[in-house]
Amino acid sequence: MTEQITLYTAKICPFSHRVEIALAEAKVGFSRFEIDLRNKPEWYAPKVNPASKVPAIAYGGPQVSPDLPSPGSVKLTESLILVEFIADLQPDSALLPKDPVQRAKARFFIDAVSTKFLPAYMGPIARGTPFESLWDALAQLQALLPADKTYALGDEYTAADIAITPFLARMEVWLTNDIGIYKEGEGKKASEYFFEGDRFARLVKYWKAIKARESFKQTFDADYIKEKYSAKFAPLRAQAQAAAVAAA
Amino acid sequence: MTEQITLYTAKICPFSHRVEIALAEAKVGFSRFEIDLRNKPEWYAPKVNPASKVPAIAYGGPQVSPDLPSPGSVKLTESLILVEFIADLQPDSALLPKDPVQRAKARFFIDAVSTKFLPAYMGPIARGTPFESLWDALAQLQALLPADKTYALGDEYTAADIAITPFLARMEVWLTNDIGIYKEGEGKKASEYFFEGDRFARLVKYWKAIKARESFKQTFDADYIKEKYSAKFAPLRAQAQAAAVAAA
Repeated sequence: MTEQITLYTAKICPFSHRVEIALAEAKVGFSRFEIDLRNKPEWYAPKVNPASKVPAIAYGGPQVSPDLPSPGSVKLTESLILVEFIADLQPDSALLPKDPVQRAKARFFIDAVSTKFLPAYMGPIARGTPFESLWDALAQLQALLPADKTYALGDEYTAADIAITPFLARMEVWLTNDIGIYKEGEGKKASEYFFEGDRFARLVKYWKAIKARESFKQTFDADYIKEKYSAKFAPLRAQAQAAAVAAA
Repeated sequence: MTEQITLYTAKICPFSHRVEIALAEAKVGFSRFEIDLRNKPEWYAPKVNPASKVPAIAYGGPQVSPDLPSPGSVKLTESLILVEFIADLQPDSALLPKDPVQRAKARFFIDAVSTKFLPAYMGPIARGTPFESLWDALAQLQALLPADKTYALGDEYTAADIAITPFLARMEVWLTNDIGIYKEGEGKKASEYFFEGDRFARLVKYWKAIKARESFKQTFDADYIKEKYSAKFAPLRAQAQAAAVAAA
């Protein structure tokens, strides 16, 4: 069996969410410690992650309280590295296929999420860039999905799908609740365009299959995300509108 | 045994160089096809890599001439993905350790190369940014090297080391030959600072161990790199100097 795993995580954080899904899919037990990102414990950077980010895993070492991390555990960071780590701990899980070509394809999809989708993903919501830049990025990912299978690599849900799941989940919350720096109503319009239109039918079908999984339902609290992001973006929208009025 | 591998590569390209080193270390036979990056064959993008970049691997399928790639082979791209692919094909090679913690550490080092070192690496040579930004990035990598072992993870040369090898090799050629957009003589000074000073003693020792490996000697042609980069940077230096004179 694997050694003890303590996950330092935050419900709001999509990168942490990846690791929570991977642990759920691989059925690996772990201790969960929520880090308040606006008020991190002072021991977190020196004793767990010098970069002071979540997610991080403390692996092995003595059984200790998560808020008293032991120097005897190995500290590992970076969400994609942690997902691969869990796949390596549980090689018989479906997290990564065994075939080298399929593994390379999983990593290619993950690379596309990192380099094509993530740079575009918060643009319309947080910076007021046109939705078209987000649609273009999503269209590139959609083009990588096989037409006749459920997930990115086939009918198994793998690390490739985990890479994008938390981001699609948050995007749905933003759009359907009209949360963002854009003008009131534009999120709802974008939501209809994305979820109801023809352009993203394949990607939406993919997303519905992901949402139905137990690993997702166990690890995502849409109401919490809605509340946190509403509180963050309502003042930003008000500021952007005031600036637009002042400039007119 | 593995199926046929055709590598599309270019001697000048550090990303391609990673894959050539990995193939040499894993002792995997392959067909090598040099792509002229300034005059790519018209079949390359449609039949091998739609992104039109090197490196790419055509794996399996019928035995064909590399310039007539078969739709029956799988096409794989992105240097780090290809290095992991070769490690997956040859799990008994030392390219990646078997221990999940060590694999995570290898990937953490690789991530640091990608996110900390690469953005800084060509700055002084190609854009005239101060050398200090490059030194800072190199110092971050050096801090990840174990004090009492040869390579990034220990005494085995792994994918972690492969990620940085081609870049250190090219940097040495630039600095020792004073190639760059900077003023004549600044490369030599930087070279002395890096190779002879105390600050980078650990990193230079690491680099010397890498350079001595057969996989490096077989895959690196310093004279070729020197000639190509000299031809590229001499006119850029002349322009930068003319601009400085005009502005004075």
